[in-house]
Amino acid sequence: MANNTNLVQKVEINCDMGEGFGKWKMGPDEELIKFIDVANITCGFHAGDPKIMLQTVRLAKKNGVKAGAHPGLQDLLGFGRGPMVIDPAKMFAMIIYQVGALRAILDFENVPVYRTKGLDNKKAIYDKPGLMFIKKAYIDILYTKEKKLVPISPDTMVSIEDIYKKTLSIGRSDTTTDKDGQDLKLGFSGAPFSICLHSDMPTALENAKACRKAVDELNANKFPTVG
Amino acid sequence: MANNTNLVQKVEINCDMGEGFGKWKMGPDEELIKFIDVANITCGFHAGDPKIMLQTVRLAKKNGVKAGAHPGLQDLLGFGRGPMVIDPAKMFAMIIYQVGALRAILDFENVPVYRTKGLDNKKAIYDKPGLMFIKKAYIDILYTKEKKLVPISPDTMVSIEDIYKKTLSIGRSDTTTDKDGQDLKLGFSGAPFSICLHSDMPTALENAKACRKAVDELNANKFPTVG
Amino acid sequence: MANNTNLVQKVEINCDMGEGFGKWKMGPDEELIKFIDVANITCGFHAGDPKIMLQTVRLAKKNGVKAGAHPGLQDLLGFGRGPMVIDPAKMFAMIIYQVGALRAILDFENVPVYRTKGLDNKKAIYDKPGLMFIKKAYIDILYTKEKKLVPISPDTMVSIEDIYKKTLSIGRSDTTTDKDGQDLKLGFSGAPFSICLHSDMPTALENAKACRKAVDELNANKFPTVG
Amino acid sequence: MANNTNLVQKVEINCDMGEGFGKWKMGPDEELIKFIDVANITCGFHAGDPKIMLQTVRLAKKNGVKAGAHPGLQDLLGFGRGPMVIDPAKMFAMIIYQVGALRAILDFENVPVYRTKGLDNKKAIYDKPGLMFIKKAYIDILYTKEKKLVPISPDTMVSIEDIYKKTLSIGRSDTTTDKDGQDLKLGFSGAPFSICLHSDMPTALENAKACRKAVDELNANKFPTVG
Repeated sequence: MANNTNLVQKVEINCDMGEGFGKWKMGPDEELIKFIDVANITCGFHAGDPKIMLQTVRLAKKNGVKAGAHPGLQDLLGFGRGPMVIDPAKMFAMIIYQVGALRAILDFENVPVYRTKGLDNKKAIYDKPGLMFIKKAYIDILYTKEKKLVPISPDTMVSIEDIYKKTLSIGRSDTTTDKDGQDLKLGFSGAPFSICLHSDMPTALENAKACRKAVDELNANKFPTVG
Repeated sequence: MANNTNLVQKVEINCDMGEGFGKWKMGPDEELIKFIDVANITCGFHAGDPKIMLQTVRLAKKNGVKAGAHPGLQDLLGFGRGPMVIDPAKMFAMIIYQVGALRAILDFENVPVYRTKGLDNKKAIYDKPGLMFIKKAYIDILYTKEKKLVPISPDTMVSIEDIYKKTLSIGRSDTTTDKDGQDLKLGFSGAPFSICLHSDMPTALENAKACRKAVDELNANKFPTVG
Repeated sequence: MANNTNLVQKVEINCDMGEGFGKWKMGPDEELIKFIDVANITCGFHAGDPKIMLQTVRLAKKNGVKAGAHPGLQDLLGFGRGPMVIDPAKMFAMIIYQVGALRAILDFENVPVYRTKGLDNKKAIYDKPGLMFIKKAYIDILYTKEKKLVPISPDTMVSIEDIYKKTLSIGRSDTTTDKDGQDLKLGFSGAPFSICLHSDMPTALENAKACRKAVDELNANKFPTVG
Repeated sequence: MANNTNLVQKVEINCDMGEGFGKWKMGPDEELIKFIDVANITCGFHAGDPKIMLQTVRLAKKNGVKAGAHPGLQDLLGFGRGPMVIDPAKMFAMIIYQVGALRAILDFENVPVYRTKGLDNKKAIYDKPGLMFIKKAYIDILYTKEKKLVPISPDTMVSIEDIYKKTLSIGRSDTTTDKDGQDLKLGFSGAPFSICLHSDMPTALENAKACRKAVDELNANKFPTVG
């Protein structure tokens, strides 16, 4: 119990994983996994396929990384980045389907499901036990001053140094910098949050290392080992 | 226990259901379901989609029909009729995925999973608890004398009368007639078996009624109600 | 030339056709085709597949019906009804692709391409020779008073009688009735237009017959045969 | 004319290109294209999408490389590597469709279509003008002594040195070495042939450079410039 409470209050890093499809690969999952706490495993609709999902579950298990579901829009061509208008009842069934498919694979490998990543463009709700919602902080994608995410493009890449600085700043003072370099209060007010990394960024691996370093410093400070 | 034993020894009718996709419909599921014992629910790879799966689960629940999984090849265009060569490890992951997706939908509706239909063109094995294999008897598709199934075509349709006769004959004497009208011993030797109907046949509904009539006669004879 | 001018000034009926996929069927194309002037042939992205496209081209050829392209969003599950946000450059390439695929099939059967149906949710432009844009009048889908189309649902079906009346009214006075029964000026001001029918409506065939009757009356009046 | 004859008698290098899909990339096309004569452009069924096809056509045009069609099985998950059983009439329609789609994109960019790559697992025939068949020589995939291709795996990679040697040997003496290192006569008997490279090999770029070097030597010898 106490353990569990500590767990969610620690700053954690989550990253979308298993985003290949068939013969196509996406991020450097095998290396990235060493620097994160939670793998959001793609469930086959916008990326991922059953074999890749099984491999990713095994990878998470081997590295002691928690495994969550990352359901998506049925849109391989657009990588589920839509947005598209979908009947909520259809979307709801698609989420049960995808999360259930991943859960079966996790179950097959005796790995517990940790969390389902919400669909960013949907008000999808999936309230079955074992799933919970947590505030998300983005550091490899820029925010506008209204806290919207800026679409990813070559011009919006965040430097490795900024990845590190933003992580520390969010952890220490609930504040990051927006796309114009202005301070932006995220408003987590002490609530647990999870830092989202993207495995399909060109510098995904370096981002993860810099973020890990900052998070370890934050947590060491927050949860000092009594010597 | 005793109940359960009786159950599998009764002759039962199973039928593939939920074989639409998006806006496309296939069989007359709402009517057919009244004449069958088990719905093999298509899992989205060769037909079916999450919303249709949810509707079909609800239909089965409402009609007191058992719900099984019908996983398939990922081939909407060919309706999974392949055959195609697939790496067994990939196929295995695809079956866990599909059965897990259906199980989540069944679980959401509090309906137990009954059985997974084997892939006819694969030596797929899925040995998790709750799944079992049962011998299958076909009456709306013709057999060759070597007990292979004749591909479905306008020339191979079985008449309603023959549906009825074949069902009775299989139930009473383990024998049907092959495509050339010759007697064919199926070799179930008293083991429980399930009669497979296909909801995509032009006369699917009439087939189901004729088969139901024969099966009810067989079971009434096998399990007479003590008056 | 004169001929061609007359042609476009005649009221014509177009209908989406070939909207099946693989084993799934949609409208009663074989019967419907007898009552229309132009078949908008679906190009495989939101419905249709190469074999169905070839069959539909042959059907149009046999019935002396003009063949146009009906490209769509890559979304079989949603039947391309989106809407979804797509990069215009991607959409443009998708239209060239789909129209080119149909053109090859038309070419194989020596049938000229007549027209490309615009994507209703896109500002897609495809200005290659042989393609032209024409105003469209809807009679089996309701308009709002702002001339937006009302999404199709069981509550928005137009009666056969109204199909006939609306067609005549549009042809004679450029006016239809909106969803609230109020007169609605379409504003074609004498320009040629094409009436769009949908083969996936429950009463598609009856709709087509009623519309044909009205259109024949309009054209007989507009282009009287000198006796 | 004479020119054209020379052209096909020169040893040429072809390579499958444009094998990404949506956000997924495959080979290093931008670099590879500098070392080949013909790009077999994937047509969207087993890989490739309309935008990638347009980009690949532009890449070929810019580099003076001929553009051919590479139609495939509708199987993104399996990269069209099947094999799968398909009704020949369906396959035929799928080839017309795919080649037509590419032709429209080539036409849009004013690039002539050069050749359609046959489907290795099909006896597909497409005999429209502008398409021709040529013998193919493989150097980055191993042959068995019966001239079958050995499935690609980490154990069957051909070294860069062998790529060079095999190319020269085929060009000079119609002979390569099989998977067991034995001489294998290909039997082209002086007929023109095309060397197939695969852009999805780990060493695709180095393979192309080594092969180009050998082909240039062969052609320099075959068509000496009169000084």
